[in-house]
Amino acid sequence: MDERKYNMAEEVKVFSTWSSPFALRVIWALKLKGVEFDTIHEDLSSKSPLLLQYNPIHKMVPVLVHNGKVICESLVILEYIDETWKQSPLLPEDPHQKANARFWAKFGDDKVSSIWSDVLMKEGKEQEEGVSASMENLKYLEEEIRGKKFFGGETIGLADIALGWLAYHLVIFEETLGLKLIDQEKFPSLAAWEQEFANAPIIRENWPDRDKLANLFGVLREANLGKGTPK
Amino acid sequence: MDERKYNMAEEVKVFSTWSSPFALRVIWALKLKGVEFDTIHEDLSSKSPLLLQYNPIHKMVPVLVHNGKVICESLVILEYIDETWKQSPLLPEDPHQKANARFWAKFGDDKVSSIWSDVLMKEGKEQEEGVSASMENLKYLEEEIRGKKFFGGETIGLADIALGWLAYHLVIFEETLGLKLIDQEKFPSLAAWEQEFANAPIIRENWPDRDKLANLFGVLREANLGKGTPK
Repeated sequence: MDERKYNMAEEVKVFSTWSSPFALRVIWALKLKGVEFDTIHEDLSSKSPLLLQYNPIHKMVPVLVHNGKVICESLVILEYIDETWKQSPLLPEDPHQKANARFWAKFGDDKVSSIWSDVLMKEGKEQEEGVSASMENLKYLEEEIRGKKFFGGETIGLADIALGWLAYHLVIFEETLGLKLIDQEKFPSLAAWEQEFANAPIIRENWPDRDKLANLFGVLREANLGKGTPK
Repeated sequence: MDERKYNMAEEVKVFSTWSSPFALRVIWALKLKGVEFDTIHEDLSSKSPLLLQYNPIHKMVPVLVHNGKVICESLVILEYIDETWKQSPLLPEDPHQKANARFWAKFGDDKVSSIWSDVLMKEGKEQEEGVSASMENLKYLEEEIRGKKFFGGETIGLADIALGWLAYHLVIFEETLGLKLIDQEKFPSLAAWEQEFANAPIIRENWPDRDKLANLFGVLREANLGKGTPK
């Protein structure tokens, strides 16, 4: 999908790559707020000089450029977006509810994300251990989402956006591997959230191509397992 | 140090342990704002049922309890404190400057913190590699702090508080090991910040005991190197 929308008043650019769940956070946030922006499509195997100039430390997407100001790190960018464009807030007003949203977004990045390294990039006994640890983390998410539509309540919020990869990227990877972590029986509320989130307006319209993603995950997994290029 | 200050209007409690640089962030923030609070001193080798109840996921200090509301994760707590008690702000008003402060706090936790695992808990060639990688990260901090008194500008802000352990815990550990990472010649501005921060009012009054900390670091290092209890 190519973004070519211009707003005369403002420069809003997102450096992104099609497969990145981190860049997707920024794209979702801007679209949920109705902010028009340009997408700069980066090829991570050959990063642009501008990306390296804007994010010299991490050299990663996403980067947001707003009227010449550069912001890096997806969760930091989400906070910036929410403070700059007040419509359709991603964070609640109440400081305690706000802390709660930040806690779950951080928990996703610090803990739940180990699914990638410890389950999806492993096999055999190592993978089994990764699954056990991941189940513990998912259990906490299940408890948090029980009785709620979104982590943000009735509307999509910061934590939903941060955890969004569970509803698509993980599902595709699970299909490839023939295993299921967020199982309907074990995690009924989290599984319901997955559906709700994945199919919400704006969210569902911006998922990357399923087959392309499945192929990329296969390549990454084989490379990580030291098996070279897959057939 | 024992905190026994009461404020009739509010319940503000911090679950802390004397050696934790993460808990210290919360204590500094509250004191910089002049918020009175009680400290619950936790022994991490025998955590209280209340700590486990309040922070069942991470089971760690710090935990802030404010009028019955529980907040975990030190950076999340700092944001909560700054939103709840507006005096002496830790974050600037401007969203871009705010993003900048959050970026450096996160950089400290995500990258600079590897000094602990990759330098202070290693020896020989592994330690040398850790030093090289850490120097790269410190170089970025040096560039950021150059020409400024604090990361927050003229006053101590979120990033200073998050990076505060560099100014004391790291210095003590360096002395124990006989190596110097934040060297006056290599990192003159960062070294100046270390001095400025470590000796600032409120900050300097709340550092833990130097000898006790040096001893704890020795124990941790020996245990990590698999050398058992030091003499």
